[in-house]
Amino acid sequence: MDLSFLHIIEVLGTFSFAVSGASFAMEKKLDPFGVLILSFVTAIGGGTLRDVMIGNLPVGWLRDETATTIIFTGALGTLLFDKYLKKLTTTLFLFDALGLGLFTLVGIEKAIQLNFSIGVCIALGTITASFGGVIRDVLLNNVPLVFRKEIYALASIIGGLVYFILKETNLDSDLSTIICILLIFIIRIVAVKFKISLPLFYTKLNK
Amino acid sequence: MDLSFLHIIEVLGTFSFAVSGASFAMEKKLDPFGVLILSFVTAIGGGTLRDVMIGNLPVGWLRDETATTIIFTGALGTLLFDKYLKKLTTTLFLFDALGLGLFTLVGIEKAIQLNFSIGVCIALGTITASFGGVIRDVLLNNVPLVFRKEIYALASIIGGLVYFILKETNLDSDLSTIICILLIFIIRIVAVKFKISLPLFYTKLNK
Amino acid sequence: MDLSFLHIIEVLGTFSFAVSGASFAMEKKLDPFGVLILSFVTAIGGGTLRDVMIGNLPVGWLRDETATTIIFTGALGTLLFDKYLKKLTTTLFLFDALGLGLFTLVGIEKAIQLNFSIGVCIALGTITASFGGVIRDVLLNNVPLVFRKEIYALASIIGGLVYFILKETNLDSDLSTIICILLIFIIRIVAVKFKISLPLFYTKLNK
Repeated sequence: MDLSFLHIIEVLGTFSFAVSGASFAMEKKLDPFGVLILSFVTAIGGGTLRDVMIGNLPVGWLRDETATTIIFTGALGTLLFDKYLKKLTTTLFLFDALGLGLFTLVGIEKAIQLNFSIGVCIALGTITASFGGVIRDVLLNNVPLVFRKEIYALASIIGGLVYFILKETNLDSDLSTIICILLIFIIRIVAVKFKISLPLFYTKLNK
Repeated sequence: MDLSFLHIIEVLGTFSFAVSGASFAMEKKLDPFGVLILSFVTAIGGGTLRDVMIGNLPVGWLRDETATTIIFTGALGTLLFDKYLKKLTTTLFLFDALGLGLFTLVGIEKAIQLNFSIGVCIALGTITASFGGVIRDVLLNNVPLVFRKEIYALASIIGGLVYFILKETNLDSDLSTIICILLIFIIRIVAVKFKISLPLFYTKLNK
Repeated sequence: MDLSFLHIIEVLGTFSFAVSGASFAMEKKLDPFGVLILSFVTAIGGGTLRDVMIGNLPVGWLRDETATTIIFTGALGTLLFDKYLKKLTTTLFLFDALGLGLFTLVGIEKAIQLNFSIGVCIALGTITASFGGVIRDVLLNNVPLVFRKEIYALASIIGGLVYFILKETNLDSDLSTIICILLIFIIRIVAVKFKISLPLFYTKLNK
């Protein structure tokens, strides 16, 4: 895996989540500083949790100002171009879905470099992609979206499984990465478009 | 302290908290994936926070798939046997109380191995036992149970103090551990059965 | 920078935040144990998050019982002298504002010792000062104060910037520290007194 390629998808994922976080904060009428913090937390929360748990310290964004710069740009852009974004709910949703795909693969590949088992790699990919949003929702006092709505983290898990299946083939590693990012992106879009959620296969009468 | 004995109580504690976390999530009507995540967070949250704060990284469950397997089994079992569990609220409560006792001692013994002071050891035992539930409650958008209800974390603290008193005697170390687990378990049961909470000994008129 | 001077402002900040955390918990009618935990979380939350992210492990309060003792004293004092504190809302607010200033500088100076860039140092100062309160608010099921109200974290950021400007002069380092603590303290007081908040400079019609 070319490191610079991993870096590019990380930059794109960071921007996607920064815009998504800023939009959520603006819907809750937070002041511009709150918008910036929420943008920040959404974009770096998952990666920070992953870095902390694997002991990759100081965590990434403290050592490399790229992420901070991207988030600042994304948050400021969202604040300034808000009136256009209102008509662009779809765009925002697409950014979030793209971030989901991008960060899942960033997480998986960082975990592979540390020789974790396949299960742990997929778990770390899912955490990287989902927990920024979880922290965002907790700070905004919502039950996290990932627990309530259409298939979200499951898309990460499926994408991660396919990545490890593709690794067994002769497919170019960068190509596999792109395929899995797109797969997660598409699963998420299809799930929301057709309102596909997991069935509550346990009895609903419980209390 | 025989490491394999510590491992057994950790396995039992993980299972207890996995079942307890899954039940809480099902009461909130989360989808099966949400149930799995909540089960996971409840079971590993406290230990993860402890490992992160003491610098025992990567955190335990990333290096040893035992925990992951147990949690998966516990969550799946709770989902599948839900209709029986409805009649078994008591069983679930007992699992949670047992987990409280087991994880307190796991935390204390890990802290002792790192030569922390007695106060810090008891704090780390309490964190190991209580904070999985705190994170579960925060994610479900509840004020954490540990802050609201009958004696919970205080049972951990008492059990921890007794453990250090017993260490001064000639009692077998494994036996002391079992005594303290049972003590915490019993304090918690008695507290709930007789609705014993700490008095608000400060004036209630405050605001 | 004399380490013992840094230590003194850390002790003062810990006490300020311990009293502030205990008061918030008492307003929510938590039991005395909950008050103690909230006091603890408010006082050590920000520093713990900072230590974890920079890899300064085990985190500070595990290695040095000073903080634990101060927090215990602060929480107990708040519980016992509650009836006087009711008339002293202003005092409590001043404690929190002072803690904000003190912890910002503690965080910045710890970050400087690790040679982080100026931006990262100010971010770590702000996190040290604000995130104890954020965790407190999340545990009490409130949208964090820092996102809702009069200028709070922005005071940290301004104080941090001034600190780096003063470093370029020949001013004594301890004196610069004191000036910046007072500056943050005063900004916060003026902001609350005159209800100065950041304008929502984006359109409010969003959603």
